[in-house]
Amino acid sequence: MAESDAGSYAVAPDELPVALTDPAYRQAVVELLAVIAYGELSAFERLSEDAKLAPSLEDKLALAQMAGAELAKVQPLVDRITQLGGDPFAAMAELHQAVDAFHAHTAPSDWYEGLVKAYVGDSLVRDFYREIAAYLDADTRDLVVSSTVEGQHAAFAVDRIRQAIVAEPRLGGRLALWGRRIMGEALTQAQSVAAERDALTALLVGGVDRPGLDLAALGRMFTRLTERHSERMAELGLEA
Amino acid sequence: MAESDAGSYAVAPDELPVALTDPAYRQAVVELLAVIAYGELSAFERLSEDAKLAPSLEDKLALAQMAGAELAKVQPLVDRITQLGGDPFAAMAELHQAVDAFHAHTAPSDWYEGLVKAYVGDSLVRDFYREIAAYLDADTRDLVVSSTVEGQHAAFAVDRIRQAIVAEPRLGGRLALWGRRIMGEALTQAQSVAAERDALTALLVGGVDRPGLDLAALGRMFTRLTERHSERMAELGLEA
Repeated sequence: MAESDAGSYAVAPDELPVALTDPAYRQAVVELLAVIAYGELSAFERLSEDAKLAPSLEDKLALAQMAGAELAKVQPLVDRITQLGGDPFAAMAELHQAVDAFHAHTAPSDWYEGLVKAYVGDSLVRDFYREIAAYLDADTRDLVVSSTVEGQHAAFAVDRIRQAIVAEPRLGGRLALWGRRIMGEALTQAQSVAAERDALTALLVGGVDRPGLDLAALGRMFTRLTERHSERMAELGLEA
Repeated sequence: MAESDAGSYAVAPDELPVALTDPAYRQAVVELLAVIAYGELSAFERLSEDAKLAPSLEDKLALAQMAGAELAKVQPLVDRITQLGGDPFAAMAELHQAVDAFHAHTAPSDWYEGLVKAYVGDSLVRDFYREIAAYLDADTRDLVVSSTVEGQHAAFAVDRIRQAIVAEPRLGGRLALWGRRIMGEALTQAQSVAAERDALTALLVGGVDRPGLDLAALGRMFTRLTERHSERMAELGLEA
């Protein structure tokens, strides 16, 4: 394959890892980084919106800082997409529907729903990207993993939710349902991305000359994601 | 004066600069840091709200990053208030009216009003705190100055506003009026803080054994603030 087929690079091809000289793989990486970046910008927007519901200034600052931590991860992804010859904002614009639909279907109705969503939803997304990261070249994997580092604020969410359930046990039932809805909506949107974006899906299921997950392995991956979700719900004192 | 009169310290009194062992001065510093911190938290909220009005994803990210830069300055102020034996959130709660009133009276009706407010309003507040900083002990002065560093995003606001006025000259007239309203509202709220908070005001006008500004010096300070405001309006291509 001639390198001129591979589209424009912002860095010289010989400075890229070999995997990224494959245009289909490179396209998939651009899409993956774009959906992560848009997800984080979107998480920033939702968390800073939810911060308005905070019952105290201290809680408001904590949620605003969770928002800020998400935002801080966007720029390195944008820079990397540009390096790979992609247009980060065009790539994000193409991929925003699933993320927007997820948020539209999981708009929290109060502070505690917001906290559960921030903790459970973000952790789920993080686990998912880390599963995908195992199938990426080393540079991209490092970037994805560093983009999904858990903030220092998860402990805050766990603490506040547990306290609230002790004070008001009925809240636990409502938040348990809410956690299930977040999980269900995340799976729905992940499937819709997989159905629409062939390049992204190929990252997981492999290509002509790249190994991927067979159906059984995909099943095990979803089992792992579900188990970790259940552990987090238990940590919050909620039934998964 | 016995040190037991000075309230509780989180650090040993002999580790504090001498000026801060004066309880009235320390109270004034706590109030000043609290109003700056609340102002920055509030700026974060307004900028992240205004980011929703962005005409593109790229502009949205830029405004979100301005919001994130404001937020990042809050924690050091909170930590310092705690060190001085103050309760940062109680202190912020006591001082939030003027900041809230400023924002309530200057809610932008579109993206460009939001940008002008972000640039002109934040710069004005920054200049004001830097003027005050000259009358503080060295440690507090350094903290205030580092809390009011201009972000890298002012250039973004200037660029976008100038472009918009070129494309739509009538916008310039509206935004010029808007800039005047922001200046007027800032002065109104600064006066209301000065009228209510004796300790804060004493920082500027001095105390029994501390020099301060006389009326003529205060007048010169406001002249400097107004001149810098006019320079910024001119930079935007607007009449002050």
